[in-house]
Amino acid sequence: MLLRDGYIAVDWGTTNRRAYRIDAGGALVADHEDDQGVTAVAAGGFEAAAADIRTALSDLPLLMAGMIGSNRGWREAAYVPCPASAEALAKATLWIAPGRTCIIPGVCQRGAAGADVMRGEEVQVIGAIAAGLMPPDAIVCHPGTHAKWIKVANSEISAFCTMMTGEMFALLSDHSILRNQLRGSVVPDAAFLAGVDEALSGAELLSSLFRIRAGALLGEGSRDPAAHASGLLIGSDVREGLAFSGSSPVTLLGRPELTALYAAAIQRAGHRTTSIDGAEAFLAGIGQIAAHF
Amino acid sequence: MLLRDGYIAVDWGTTNRRAYRIDAGGALVADHEDDQGVTAVAAGGFEAAAADIRTALSDLPLLMAGMIGSNRGWREAAYVPCPASAEALAKATLWIAPGRTCIIPGVCQRGAAGADVMRGEEVQVIGAIAAGLMPPDAIVCHPGTHAKWIKVANSEISAFCTMMTGEMFALLSDHSILRNQLRGSVVPDAAFLAGVDEALSGAELLSSLFRIRAGALLGEGSRDPAAHASGLLIGSDVREGLAFSGSSPVTLLGRPELTALYAAAIQRAGHRTTSIDGAEAFLAGIGQIAAHF
Repeated sequence: MLLRDGYIAVDWGTTNRRAYRIDAGGALVADHEDDQGVTAVAAGGFEAAAADIRTALSDLPLLMAGMIGSNRGWREAAYVPCPASAEALAKATLWIAPGRTCIIPGVCQRGAAGADVMRGEEVQVIGAIAAGLMPPDAIVCHPGTHAKWIKVANSEISAFCTMMTGEMFALLSDHSILRNQLRGSVVPDAAFLAGVDEALSGAELLSSLFRIRAGALLGEGSRDPAAHASGLLIGSDVREGLAFSGSSPVTLLGRPELTALYAAAIQRAGHRTTSIDGAEAFLAGIGQIAAHF
Repeated sequence: MLLRDGYIAVDWGTTNRRAYRIDAGGALVADHEDDQGVTAVAAGGFEAAAADIRTALSDLPLLMAGMIGSNRGWREAAYVPCPASAEALAKATLWIAPGRTCIIPGVCQRGAAGADVMRGEEVQVIGAIAAGLMPPDAIVCHPGTHAKWIKVANSEISAFCTMMTGEMFALLSDHSILRNQLRGSVVPDAAFLAGVDEALSGAELLSSLFRIRAGALLGEGSRDPAAHASGLLIGSDVREGLAFSGSSPVTLLGRPELTALYAAAIQRAGHRTTSIDGAEAFLAGIGQIAAHF
């Protein structure tokens, strides 16, 4: 009811943000993307950074999710504990200005299951179910800097496990002894699958990553060390994710260039996958959560 | 015969170097350590950097080992293939100035066993045997930036496996999302052993490292995240190293503050250890190799 004239949904991450104007009928009518992620905005600068979005798209309510609600963001939004539903996320939403500007909370897991947190992926999961893109009971893998494997039961996020796969690839590419070798974009080619196979058959990262360096020094290395290293990391992630989730098929949710790599690795392990575009799921998720306001 | 007046043994690594003057009778009479590791010396500057050592210690033959023989060093010395003996290392020594200045080669492993390389550790292994500090058949673990697990048979290096454990800890401490948490020196305390136990019971690094971050955000994290992370990494290293080497006891060779951490982790896994100071082994190794010149 608060949003009868439409709203702007904002996926505000660490390094960039994407905003979508939704009209009164629920249709996407315009969008805006820029590099003003939370680390690019100085403390105290978020009010102005949010105003820029309204200037670009329209003076409508802003419904935000992602790292904007973290301790580096505008205001720290709560974490809803597992199992987390759309209704629970709506109830715990942090209103910076009532009816006008809010941050959707994240989700956390505590205790024996292992401390874990997410911000942003929960909106995509809720949305994928609401839009009929995946069933209300599913195993979701959301690739990224901090990849998530998520168990969904009865339309709720029941448990999850984060792996710092994307961050590890960035650390190795930018700062490690492999940095000069890890160049170029990665696609699911033979070098990538060789790394996946190595990981799925039990190779451990601390040694398998060094073999990329040693192979190059001895002239018997991979022709595409970036794809090989990515395959080792994603293969390790998938090996552990499948052990965590324990069933098939796996619903891949996120950026298509990343879900394609994970789909190749998960299929290599003998499991079926389906892939959903994260942006589409995000919009459906914000709509579903807003319906509970 | 070349060295009848004594010599200077130099362990010249990536970030620092240590030189020892050995007299005609084989006794250590003086040493010199500084931060002129190979990355601190500009191309073309090694002749002068070596002269500085002679100025500090004496105008004697320089017998060097370590990263000085790498493609970032003074001149690239060969890798002797496994199985590698003291005699093979002596024969493949690179003489920059005959009888006066040389670099001991490294050791490599090729083919199905997995591409791998070492530079410097081989001298310590040869020396530990020559000095009677360990038997001619042994499993050696040499901790460091690139930790080595080494199978020694009949006084030769027969196979080995490198793990980038120390480098990974440095990447995480300096550049990762954990960088603000990983502060302070690590000793084998309860937090370290908790990390070791987690790794030995099968926890994988990509997820267990992220739990350090999530635990802190949720107020249920380790009180000493640096020790916890170090335990996870060294525990993973030990888990794989024991699977590689397949027997006990393990001879730890290297810097005492590092071998103490590995000894605690290996003992936690139920295996016996003995520890040897790497500097003592290095001197014995240079002497043993020089005896074959």
